[in-house]
Amino acid sequence: MNKGELAEVLVAGSWKPSRGTNAFTSVYPRNGNELGVFPVSPWPEIEEALEAGAQAYEQLQESSAETLAGFLERFADRIESRSELLVEAAHAETALPARPRLADVELPRTTDQLRQAASAARQRTWREPVLSPAARIASLYGPIPGVVCVFGPNNFPFAFNSAAGGDFAAAVATGHSVIAKGNPGHSETTRLLAGEAHLAANDLGLPSAMIQLIYKTSHEDGFRMVADSRVAATGYTGSRQTGLKLKAAAETAGRPIYLELSSVNPVVVLSGAWEERGRGLAEELAESMLAGNGQFCTSPGLILTPDGSHVEGLRQGFRKSLEKAPSGTLLDQGVALGLARSEEIWDAAGATLVAEAPQAGPGFSFPNTMMEISGDLFLENTELFQREAFGNLSLLVVSRDLDQLVECLQHLEGNLTGSVYSATGGRDEKAYAAVAGHLRERVGRLLNDKVPTGVAVVPAMNHGGPYPSTGHPGFTAVGIPASLKRFAMLQCYDNVPDHRLPPELQAANPLGLQRMVNGTWTSEAVTWGND
Amino acid sequence: MNKGELAEVLVAGSWKPSRGTNAFTSVYPRNGNELGVFPVSPWPEIEEALEAGAQAYEQLQESSAETLAGFLERFADRIESRSELLVEAAHAETALPARPRLADVELPRTTDQLRQAASAARQRTWREPVLSPAARIASLYGPIPGVVCVFGPNNFPFAFNSAAGGDFAAAVATGHSVIAKGNPGHSETTRLLAGEAHLAANDLGLPSAMIQLIYKTSHEDGFRMVADSRVAATGYTGSRQTGLKLKAAAETAGRPIYLELSSVNPVVVLSGAWEERGRGLAEELAESMLAGNGQFCTSPGLILTPDGSHVEGLRQGFRKSLEKAPSGTLLDQGVALGLARSEEIWDAAGATLVAEAPQAGPGFSFPNTMMEISGDLFLENTELFQREAFGNLSLLVVSRDLDQLVECLQHLEGNLTGSVYSATGGRDEKAYAAVAGHLRERVGRLLNDKVPTGVAVVPAMNHGGPYPSTGHPGFTAVGIPASLKRFAMLQCYDNVPDHRLPPELQAANPLGLQRMVNGTWTSEAVTWGND
Repeated sequence: MNKGELAEVLVAGSWKPSRGTNAFTSVYPRNGNELGVFPVSPWPEIEEALEAGAQAYEQLQESSAETLAGFLERFADRIESRSELLVEAAHAETALPARPRLADVELPRTTDQLRQAASAARQRTWREPVLSPAARIASLYGPIPGVVCVFGPNNFPFAFNSAAGGDFAAAVATGHSVIAKGNPGHSETTRLLAGEAHLAANDLGLPSAMIQLIYKTSHEDGFRMVADSRVAATGYTGSRQTGLKLKAAAETAGRPIYLELSSVNPVVVLSGAWEERGRGLAEELAESMLAGNGQFCTSPGLILTPDGSHVEGLRQGFRKSLEKAPSGTLLDQGVALGLARSEEIWDAAGATLVAEAPQAGPGFSFPNTMMEISGDLFLENTELFQREAFGNLSLLVVSRDLDQLVECLQHLEGNLTGSVYSATGGRDEKAYAAVAGHLRERVGRLLNDKVPTGVAVVPAMNHGGPYPSTGHPGFTAVGIPASLKRFAMLQCYDNVPDHRLPPELQAANPLGLQRMVNGTWTSEAVTWGND
Repeated sequence: MNKGELAEVLVAGSWKPSRGTNAFTSVYPRNGNELGVFPVSPWPEIEEALEAGAQAYEQLQESSAETLAGFLERFADRIESRSELLVEAAHAETALPARPRLADVELPRTTDQLRQAASAARQRTWREPVLSPAARIASLYGPIPGVVCVFGPNNFPFAFNSAAGGDFAAAVATGHSVIAKGNPGHSETTRLLAGEAHLAANDLGLPSAMIQLIYKTSHEDGFRMVADSRVAATGYTGSRQTGLKLKAAAETAGRPIYLELSSVNPVVVLSGAWEERGRGLAEELAESMLAGNGQFCTSPGLILTPDGSHVEGLRQGFRKSLEKAPSGTLLDQGVALGLARSEEIWDAAGATLVAEAPQAGPGFSFPNTMMEISGDLFLENTELFQREAFGNLSLLVVSRDLDQLVECLQHLEGNLTGSVYSATGGRDEKAYAAVAGHLRERVGRLLNDKVPTGVAVVPAMNHGGPYPSTGHPGFTAVGIPASLKRFAMLQCYDNVPDHRLPPELQAANPLGLQRMVNGTWTSEAVTWGND
């Protein structure tokens, strides 16, 4: 794409000029220089994408699991072969460091996710066959029919990209076509990724409309899209405000939607942990707060500790780490303005400064900051102090004692993560027992002595949590095969002759899968009742 | 309860007069005679129930899985010991036959469900532990915190009763307290069941507010209740109109809600099936249509067949069976009026009569009826002809040919079930292949050569389906342990020391469960990374 030229959309199998008349520009966050111009897709273009996506879905049902897996792997290979260009584009649009962050961490994570999804498609682990042979009934997960819409967030241009990230991989592995609604914060990166996905589909002879890309829509058209009957389900990661409107639109029409919204990721520091580890603990937490300049979904935004002799040391540790570290460039001006607004609101409500870096970074930025309030103040205004300050601003809550800390926890909203730092030698065990249960109820992932940033892509991972961190606490956006089940429906077969069953459910178990038979997971063959 | 006396509600651990000033009467559907008077609970009473239910939930978290299982079994025993009284009450309120239906089929199914749920609680099959030992991460399903609200339907006074049915059993097995919102069609039956549940809780020393009962609320208070932050989730089985309003209220507030709404349960009859089986096929289908006087969620309401020499025989078969069978008494006047309205609407739209029993039954009733339309007519007005005629009225669609039948299927909304009758000898195989895929996408359970009524309570059962038959096609209301997962959230533990993990996730696997470890189900012990 040449500078100043309007980017093309990928709709109905080919790159083409948008039918839209509105456009937006992307800029380099470090200096505001214009990078490119991208169209806003009007409804007729979305309508065309929905129709082509629905047809591609039907065509995909003829493809084998092996072909889908091959596509995901080919796509991963292609991403690796274009890694330099991708890293350059993503850095230009997000100001995230090219190395190590983009090239050495996020890009390999992205290709790893695609390959894990390929493996899940091939091994069919997401299908979870359940057989009740005597009743001649069997069931498994299959795709919800239709095209999946993916709305990616601004903070992970690769790993959560709408055309290559976890939601995309999960949707394809379950047999879906995808309409990627790019995040306007990294349109060019998304364009390059969608291009590679499109070529990978062509390589494998898959429907060329299985991946489509639009960069932006009006709010109204977005609501209309997720509610469309041709949509199987939607994955959305982003702001709470927009997410809740999409949720209402989709659910009113009976379309499933999976949302990852805001999370402040509470961290409880018990006194014994400080006494064992001292300043290293503050350093570790501060480093986590500043990961991606605090622009992680799992960034520790709320630190809670009971008052005691350790608190002054903790403050000093945070001060030293946060003031020493350079303040980075943020993803866009909105993030910087949001942080300034949060600081202003908390300041007006009585919070004090614990740490403030001497200066902001280049471009859109905000100085690394920590503020502090008492437990009393938190309890007076629990909603205001749970405001997500997305970026390098955290809040320390010093409660009167452990009982008040527990009371604070009881007022927490749902979060993706919650961490407890405690003594490893046993002296915090009673305090741990007092806090862990309350945290457990309110978070998707409970950590001990570990920062919440860094989401390992392993089967047991849960990157989800109670509302409002997500829309449903039973689902996860990361962790395969669990993340695939978001795009699946239960398909039951009752008295269907063996030769008409999908191979996963046939009596002889030709695929050698583990299946739940009468309550036990086994790979043995079965005999249907009355056969 | 004495006749004319206002029934008490079960709120906050004890039976007490309602604070409400409004009431409603229940009647015997065969003659309209008054049976009892029940209160409409005002908001302060619901608020009291929510608060007590939330507290009971917290108390229940101290109870062992064994105790919960013991409660469910004790409750089942108590139901059996009161079966005569329960059958008498349920017959009086619903006019459903005391035998075999209520005493010999539905009551045993209800106690079987409770015992299966007890077994799932004890064996923890619903928890699905997943371990990634090298990463020191493990997860499992745990209860969504809070009280579960259950709204039962009118058509199964025992098996789907809000105080004893499948949703109740699933909610308790996952560690929840329950607020039963009784169906006004069988208030006395629900009162008796809630009483037995309450006594069973007392027997086991469980919180006396773990089961609460209210009979009716205003619509507004119902919406407010399901949206309350103390509610874990809601299970609702009933009309589409009310269900969709509850759905909007709950989901706007981020509370999960599981709905079972309307379903017409399409049945495709291919010509080869008729040629093999003849009139027996029509008899079988007619019997299914009249099960519970057609008041089953899975009642076959829409029969589709391609035109051919078999059609006249099929019509005659239906005519003979439906006109010969007595027309029964319906659950209430609303059901009878709804059937008359459906007949009127279809008649005005061009449907003709295939069969009509010579007379209606005693009390609220409607003569057994089948109407017929062409495939052309169906395609002209697919919405109108998919209207759920709840009761003993079905619609036959005779399409021009197989292609048009397929076109009709492509216009079907989501349903709980879909059946195909075809030749067993192979001659319908091509036609089966043409129709099965389209039906598969639109139904939760696909049957072959079998009527959809009769929902076996086995692990592989799916009593769910695409919208609008339910609110989410990934969940089932029947089939254990799957039905329990509706009330569960994903709970992940990251770097938590082994002794602080729930026993299901501890390295040594002290409970001997099957767990997914690195993608394989196994009951072996594991070793955490870096241990």
